[in-house]
Amino acid sequence: MTDLALYSMPSSGNSYKVRLLLALLEHPYRHIPCEANSPALAQAKADGHLPLGKLPALHLPDGTILSESGAILWYLGQGTPWVPETPLAQAQMLAWMFFEQNRHEPVIAVRASLNCYPHLADQATPEVMARLADEGHAILSVMENALAHSPWFAGDAPTLADIALYGYTHTAGSRGGFDMVRFPRLAAWCARIAALPGYRGLDADA
Amino acid sequence: MTDLALYSMPSSGNSYKVRLLLALLEHPYRHIPCEANSPALAQAKADGHLPLGKLPALHLPDGTILSESGAILWYLGQGTPWVPETPLAQAQMLAWMFFEQNRHEPVIAVRASLNCYPHLADQATPEVMARLADEGHAILSVMENALAHSPWFAGDAPTLADIALYGYTHTAGSRGGFDMVRFPRLAAWCARIAALPGYRGLDADA
Repeated sequence: MTDLALYSMPSSGNSYKVRLLLALLEHPYRHIPCEANSPALAQAKADGHLPLGKLPALHLPDGTILSESGAILWYLGQGTPWVPETPLAQAQMLAWMFFEQNRHEPVIAVRASLNCYPHLADQATPEVMARLADEGHAILSVMENALAHSPWFAGDAPTLADIALYGYTHTAGSRGGFDMVRFPRLAAWCARIAALPGYRGLDADA
Repeated sequence: MTDLALYSMPSSGNSYKVRLLLALLEHPYRHIPCEANSPALAQAKADGHLPLGKLPALHLPDGTILSESGAILWYLGQGTPWVPETPLAQAQMLAWMFFEQNRHEPVIAVRASLNCYPHLADQATPEVMARLADEGHAILSVMENALAHSPWFAGDAPTLADIALYGYTHTAGSRGGFDMVRFPRLAAWCARIAALPGYRGLDADA
């Protein structure tokens, strides 16, 4: 897996998750940045490099293209300490990854997008932003409660679940406008991730 | 895994996915039905039986509670032909499962809910329903195109990806009001799943 090419959006948390794991694994790869609304993104779509129409997409040396950040994390994490070994522990990790994609990202990331991307500003009505704030605080509360029992989301060590959840949670205050003062355990967990050897911030590629 | 208890919503596709896999595996379990807005659902939440606040939830004999339909499928599918063996094939399966939870379910299932649940009827404005129809037909087109190359979504045999996608796709016409005549490969794929030995329909528990 040394000749990997990653099509990713520098400003996107979903893309960042993959770049973060690759950094933590010290895994070399070729990065093709495709920012939102950029000619590079249009070209990547036109060339068939994004089969499911979305970023990130990992291109393997044999030509296989893997889509969906969670699936890419799974592939890259195999055989590393980032994936636990038992089916139950794997399922508990995957539960948080599905939670993130189904309930967290459509609220936390969407509110951040409406705040930060000028071309979406007309959708950011006060009603929508207030609803997303309420829903997001409820989601973040579920996470805060889970950290009462463990420093990491799935077991005693960091797993792909932590990387997946970190992607949009660590900017939920700065980009999403969520009130993170309510969630001290999440703040401490974010600090633990940022202190991991090899950690690379979202803005390193922006 | 013989003394499993499943808290599930009879009318929900997410819950149905788990019941369908258990039926296909001929795996016995105790079913605790918790329909939307029912006293049983309120009781299950109050008793702490749904740690992430949602159905389905699988209770294992040792007291462990597993949430998120995709994670439950992963746990139950281990060691069966429903989960492929290589990390790449697993990742390709998981990609469709994440696609389903992030892009398919929030559109296909949500439009069906707005159509079918009386307590949501006030949200089903013409504008919302038209937007969900457009988005859903685009999602279904991605699936239709994928079936041009294979009878199943991840490889030559059915996997958890097919069960996850089937949950809300097979009722996208009847409940969601999507125009399924446009998607003949999806119709044939639905028929292949319904012909699998042990198949159990959504309404068997409703």
